[in-house]
Amino acid sequence: MHIAFIGTGNMGLPMLANLLKKGFSATLDRAVAQGAARAASPAEAAAAGEMVITILPSSGNVEAAYLGAGGILEGVAAGRLCIDMSTIDPGTSQRVAARLAERGVRFVDAPVSGGVGGATAGTLAIMVGGAAGDFAEAKPALDAMGTNIIHVGAVGAGEVAKLCNNLIAGAAFVAVSEAFRIAEAFGVDPKILTAVIAKSSGATWVMEKNHPVPGIDPASAANRDYAPGFMTDLMAKDLGLAVNAAREKRVPVAVAAAAQQIYRMASAHGLGRKDCASVYQFLAPSKDEAPV
Amino acid sequence: MHIAFIGTGNMGLPMLANLLKKGFSATLDRAVAQGAARAASPAEAAAAGEMVITILPSSGNVEAAYLGAGGILEGVAAGRLCIDMSTIDPGTSQRVAARLAERGVRFVDAPVSGGVGGATAGTLAIMVGGAAGDFAEAKPALDAMGTNIIHVGAVGAGEVAKLCNNLIAGAAFVAVSEAFRIAEAFGVDPKILTAVIAKSSGATWVMEKNHPVPGIDPASAANRDYAPGFMTDLMAKDLGLAVNAAREKRVPVAVAAAAQQIYRMASAHGLGRKDCASVYQFLAPSKDEAPV
Amino acid sequence: MHIAFIGTGNMGLPMLANLLKKGFSATLDRAVAQGAARAASPAEAAAAGEMVITILPSSGNVEAAYLGAGGILEGVAAGRLCIDMSTIDPGTSQRVAARLAERGVRFVDAPVSGGVGGATAGTLAIMVGGAAGDFAEAKPALDAMGTNIIHVGAVGAGEVAKLCNNLIAGAAFVAVSEAFRIAEAFGVDPKILTAVIAKSSGATWVMEKNHPVPGIDPASAANRDYAPGFMTDLMAKDLGLAVNAAREKRVPVAVAAAAQQIYRMASAHGLGRKDCASVYQFLAPSKDEAPV
Amino acid sequence: MHIAFIGTGNMGLPMLANLLKKGFSATLDRAVAQGAARAASPAEAAAAGEMVITILPSSGNVEAAYLGAGGILEGVAAGRLCIDMSTIDPGTSQRVAARLAERGVRFVDAPVSGGVGGATAGTLAIMVGGAAGDFAEAKPALDAMGTNIIHVGAVGAGEVAKLCNNLIAGAAFVAVSEAFRIAEAFGVDPKILTAVIAKSSGATWVMEKNHPVPGIDPASAANRDYAPGFMTDLMAKDLGLAVNAAREKRVPVAVAAAAQQIYRMASAHGLGRKDCASVYQFLAPSKDEAPV
Repeated sequence: MHIAFIGTGNMGLPMLANLLKKGFSATLDRAVAQGAARAASPAEAAAAGEMVITILPSSGNVEAAYLGAGGILEGVAAGRLCIDMSTIDPGTSQRVAARLAERGVRFVDAPVSGGVGGATAGTLAIMVGGAAGDFAEAKPALDAMGTNIIHVGAVGAGEVAKLCNNLIAGAAFVAVSEAFRIAEAFGVDPKILTAVIAKSSGATWVMEKNHPVPGIDPASAANRDYAPGFMTDLMAKDLGLAVNAAREKRVPVAVAAAAQQIYRMASAHGLGRKDCASVYQFLAPSKDEAPV
Repeated sequence: MHIAFIGTGNMGLPMLANLLKKGFSATLDRAVAQGAARAASPAEAAAAGEMVITILPSSGNVEAAYLGAGGILEGVAAGRLCIDMSTIDPGTSQRVAARLAERGVRFVDAPVSGGVGGATAGTLAIMVGGAAGDFAEAKPALDAMGTNIIHVGAVGAGEVAKLCNNLIAGAAFVAVSEAFRIAEAFGVDPKILTAVIAKSSGATWVMEKNHPVPGIDPASAANRDYAPGFMTDLMAKDLGLAVNAAREKRVPVAVAAAAQQIYRMASAHGLGRKDCASVYQFLAPSKDEAPV
Repeated sequence: MHIAFIGTGNMGLPMLANLLKKGFSATLDRAVAQGAARAASPAEAAAAGEMVITILPSSGNVEAAYLGAGGILEGVAAGRLCIDMSTIDPGTSQRVAARLAERGVRFVDAPVSGGVGGATAGTLAIMVGGAAGDFAEAKPALDAMGTNIIHVGAVGAGEVAKLCNNLIAGAAFVAVSEAFRIAEAFGVDPKILTAVIAKSSGATWVMEKNHPVPGIDPASAANRDYAPGFMTDLMAKDLGLAVNAAREKRVPVAVAAAAQQIYRMASAHGLGRKDCASVYQFLAPSKDEAPV
Repeated sequence: MHIAFIGTGNMGLPMLANLLKKGFSATLDRAVAQGAARAASPAEAAAAGEMVITILPSSGNVEAAYLGAGGILEGVAAGRLCIDMSTIDPGTSQRVAARLAERGVRFVDAPVSGGVGGATAGTLAIMVGGAAGDFAEAKPALDAMGTNIIHVGAVGAGEVAKLCNNLIAGAAFVAVSEAFRIAEAFGVDPKILTAVIAKSSGATWVMEKNHPVPGIDPASAANRDYAPGFMTDLMAKDLGLAVNAAREKRVPVAVAAAAQQIYRMASAHGLGRKDCASVYQFLAPSKDEAPV
């Protein structure tokens, strides 16, 4: 199958490589690598493909690539399937899908997790939102790029699943960091505290699999100077999308909003490209002489 | 052993009953039940006991009972051990311990979890802060009241462990509730989302053991109209203590502080005596016609 | 001058009436009142006007009206000036302006404040973002609708000014309410506290002009059961836009984000159509028996 | 009149100097300056004075000085008046007052504002909580130290007034900083924005008298590299006291809590001894390349 592939960044490029390895062919919308053809615009690329795959940095990029001047909507044939693998607002996914549907074009959202490592190894987790038939049609291409492909629900549901998961994980990284900063200030041994919490109601994947405090879990980012892993900047982005999705649907989200701003500040204070567990570093206390 | 037992409320009374059942005797500081003797004041009760046990509602109550007029400090003999099982500020524990130490009296903090059910069944979890020898001396009495007795560290460490665990759990209940409110607003099936998150970085004890959304886990409080379990009011209290402990030590705690205020608001809006998972109810969205 | 007027809601209708009164004529995009002509679509309306004015509820509506199928961009002649008076994301204003500019169409953002009362009386405050020449060209029409017309800066600056002002006012309503709830809990007379704060660093327009506590200022919304004035729902919307604008520009905004969520919750708990000062009602304390 | 003066720190020392200048004499609780006598303990100092004045860094210090071993309560004669000029929890003021009252000793809380400059010049603002007769009795001594002496209400009301004012001012500094960071990111001229907001609902003392953005008001701390003025660390302390006072009374305070944590973080990131307006510096955005 020939694919129009839009978005050959850090993630898109190795994902494309896996598609080509598995026998797909592709037309790209810009400077070409790896034996794929080149088009002048998303519209032209879309016209050349039997299926369209996009993976772009932001909601605005996705809207522009699909609906803007020279965009996919101008070139894609009725009946085609578009797979957007970007992490964006689910509301944007639904709006783009609705505009495409007016012209008989189908759309699924299929954001990924697993990072550049997973993209290269072809082991991404992919959460998919769309009609059952469209999911089935997308599956072979997704199988070329990932190993854990889940059909979550209708269009937008893939984004919702990713953002909701990261909302909880992002809040948990901050909460765990706050808890251990308090414990440290009172002189409590973080290893003993870890053992206590692990068996109680505070147990989380975050503490178990990527403990933010250095010196506890040899495998965690904290023990390699917070080399990512999942970057603070991406956690800030995903929490921002979650909070914005909540805004669009009038859902109050106080903890997610607080966590979002903490990652934004941690990014602004130099931790953007560190693992998101470095929020523990950001949450250092004031010096002892500060009045309380 | 004869114990001075101060604080015969909802928790203290069944805990006392278990002590008496296991062969301890007791003097109380007020109207007496279950064959225990009665004293006119904490000082008088303390004078009568070989060991002092206190379980009181607040930091202020503990300070008054130990250090106030007619308080334990006035009656207790040098060399005695005091066990405070209240959930209070670890800073208060340390201040009371320091004042007692000036007179040669020993102190451990030993807050409990498990609720009235665990107090009655004698199956409480008890987190203890204090010297190793004092922990060993306290152990037989604690064994009469609980089944999971952990020595966390020096004085205050028991409180720290409890508050830090509840900080994470409290934040997680809010974060999970926010995530599922968003998902619901986008029409995503909460059962499928639960399955996705359970295997990803958002996995928490909270979602696994006491899912805040009704209709998912038959055993959760959400499926019995949020009958507690662990009340919203107590979560508000514990998060308040955690945030205050952070304040005393100059630790920034944005997510804990946001979560604390949410439980406070949920309490003010009628959910104080429901299970803390009812924060999901509090976080209902605005009606569809509200502008965004 | 003949105007294409898109958006005849609660605000738009009286604004249009003032334009007609001052001698402008208009074509609308839907069912017609007051002697204006009717078009089948924004595109058709735009084609009929020498100038385009839009006032719509949300960023999505504005994007659709300008850039969607049958939108203004399809009908408007090169060289025309479009005035968007909606309160929306400044980023959306800038994106729409950029798309129009590609076709030689000019755009200013000109959000209003003053509510339905100001719209009817023709006394709106209007904050304008756009080129100086475009502002000058827009001025006569704006003068027909408002009395305080300010040129703030380039495209988007009108929205920024409105949102930034409301960010501060919205945070202040919450902060003032929190302060007076605390004072009340300690038995302090709110009138005396008002006098103290009015002369100190806590002085704000909010406390001076629309005191959220009943019984202090006879002219405030609090003394007419929080009849608006400026509705909670609109404050929630504007703070949401401000926080989202911050997100787009990577600016951390912890207080704005906390305030946004409080208005969202107040709306969800029945105060959406009350004056935003009713956030004081929302922030009632828990009952006295709740543990602390 | 002979005064027992407890607390000769940065604030207390110049305040004491003004008392001595105005003809009061004093006994201090430690190493003596300026012709005042020296006592071995607060109790001994209190025994020597016709009136007791305390000004100490924290609630814990005040409790210890009044109620601890060798504390004022042990030395002060029945009928005496104690004036606590510390900035502390109003709940602590009330608890100390109640304990003193048991022994017939009177208490007023009288926190100050005006900083070391005001203390030296004798121009402090002093907010007083206590009985009318006690206020009248305290007035001559307070007049020696300040120029704006206000009787706010019963015991605790002085602290409440100070904390509530600073709650609003502290939240406003953050909100104004957030607003101007957003405006800056969109390229809006901060001087024009200042002019717009000054006449609208966002007007605050904070923006008018100590604008946090450099380059706007020559007199503001922002234009002298944030030299204080009122330090970030003190704002963090006062907001912490306000949030803790709210906690004791079960009042929800989301904006105050968010602002408190921002000052705590700003302090931890090196701005503790800068003017609190430097929170604007702390709220710098992430670099442009960060994903959104």
